[in-house]
Amino acid sequence: MTFNNILIIGAGTMGIQIAGQIARHGIHVEVYDTSKEQLRIARKAIEQYCGRNSVRYCDDTQALSKNPDLIIESVTENMKIKQAVLAWIEDYFDNERMVICSNTSDLLPSKLSRKMRLRHRFCAYHFHAPMNGANIVDIMPHKQTDHEIPLLLSDFTREIGLIPLVLRKEHSAYVYNNILNAIMDKSVELVIRGVADAEDIDRAWMGNTGMQIGPFGMLDAIGLDTALEVTKVRARKNPLRLPGIIFFQQYVKQGRLGVKSGQGFYTYPDPEYNKDDFLR
Amino acid sequence: MTFNNILIIGAGTMGIQIAGQIARHGIHVEVYDTSKEQLRIARKAIEQYCGRNSVRYCDDTQALSKNPDLIIESVTENMKIKQAVLAWIEDYFDNERMVICSNTSDLLPSKLSRKMRLRHRFCAYHFHAPMNGANIVDIMPHKQTDHEIPLLLSDFTREIGLIPLVLRKEHSAYVYNNILNAIMDKSVELVIRGVADAEDIDRAWMGNTGMQIGPFGMLDAIGLDTALEVTKVRARKNPLRLPGIIFFQQYVKQGRLGVKSGQGFYTYPDPEYNKDDFLR
Repeated sequence: MTFNNILIIGAGTMGIQIAGQIARHGIHVEVYDTSKEQLRIARKAIEQYCGRNSVRYCDDTQALSKNPDLIIESVTENMKIKQAVLAWIEDYFDNERMVICSNTSDLLPSKLSRKMRLRHRFCAYHFHAPMNGANIVDIMPHKQTDHEIPLLLSDFTREIGLIPLVLRKEHSAYVYNNILNAIMDKSVELVIRGVADAEDIDRAWMGNTGMQIGPFGMLDAIGLDTALEVTKVRARKNPLRLPGIIFFQQYVKQGRLGVKSGQGFYTYPDPEYNKDDFLR
Repeated sequence: MTFNNILIIGAGTMGIQIAGQIARHGIHVEVYDTSKEQLRIARKAIEQYCGRNSVRYCDDTQALSKNPDLIIESVTENMKIKQAVLAWIEDYFDNERMVICSNTSDLLPSKLSRKMRLRHRFCAYHFHAPMNGANIVDIMPHKQTDHEIPLLLSDFTREIGLIPLVLRKEHSAYVYNNILNAIMDKSVELVIRGVADAEDIDRAWMGNTGMQIGPFGMLDAIGLDTALEVTKVRARKNPLRLPGIIFFQQYVKQGRLGVKSGQGFYTYPDPEYNKDDFLR
């Protein structure tokens, strides 16, 4: 095994996905979160995914193993909060050789690690949603990351049944998320322009690709409030995204947030696109 | 049956795809082309696809049935040539109630039909590649198309085992091709920026979506010469596409045209992405 003492910080959506995938491969992992309630949710989801397992849930830093060799922080997607957690990690654990990672879909490792003493041991390590079958893991070193680290993380990624993708340079949103954003942008634009409705666009996508879900089904899964926030951030760089804000706001104002609220572009738990006659 | 006397004009790539799909459902269809050689190629491909069938191949207009009720022209993607073929159709056949369609991926029906006497019987009818499993057919009427025509074409599309998608208004490149273009643009941009190479991008796509092919495998199938031509046309509207021209030119100059030349981003007939260890 590449790593023997793994710690995940943050038991949110992505912390659960990562811990669940590791646990499923029989590897011991500790999950830390300040919230007992969030740890309870994590335990339930992970047990549902892989049955009995050896995940250890902690809400007290004193109870953590002292010498982790891999730490993946997966706290909220905010530069300052992540930097504070990274500062705490290198201060608290007494292991100069540990590998420290951030699971982030948008923040660059050179910026996250700017003030770190163990900067050379740091790398971005971006999971999609392995428990849902999205098997790619992006490994994005910055210029000062030790050369062995992408190799170690690639090995570990394979040990937990996933596919490593080492990026050649830092780039916001990595590979797949960039392409996914392009799909979403174009799909939303076609609806705004009145060319086709959301269901027809999903039909076009599913009928031609053979996939079980289309762009608007995916947006419902991501959450339309999240899509709105992402669109706001992206509209700062590209004003062509502005109509997208109005588009998502209509749904969010009505409480239609997607799968989690039971209603988005589709109605859940039995959305139209899962029905046999959707592709007719 | 919605139509009993179907004629396809043009036995190129798309004419073959459409005729093959119709023949597979036991429906009689005539295919006309001026080239005996092209008809021979069509016959071979269609027999390979669906065995014995009732397609009739003609290189002589005199030999065609006199009263087709559905004519699909699928000649080269050029406005003037298509308009000339449409003029010939309405002049030659003596059926005021026939449905006349153009299979086009980019040209608008209002422009194609501008000078037609039977303009109200005309509609764009865009197949993807049904023999390869791309099951969506776009039906794009213009403002003066008779209301019954999208309904007739929807019924017929279902009769030949495909999924009709009626567009609400004219829009170049329809739904799926618009999204596909967005995927290709972003993928090429990531390679040009040096973030990842073509294989890694395909890996990211295939590993997360579960599809058997990625954006660069698709480009090889489309043909890199075709991708170059499409990029040139699109760059006229959007100069951000200009680097894409240089990108595709590098391959075309070396004779690397994709599947058809045996070499593109991958080497054929056994491209890397078909190998078991591609997703590792």
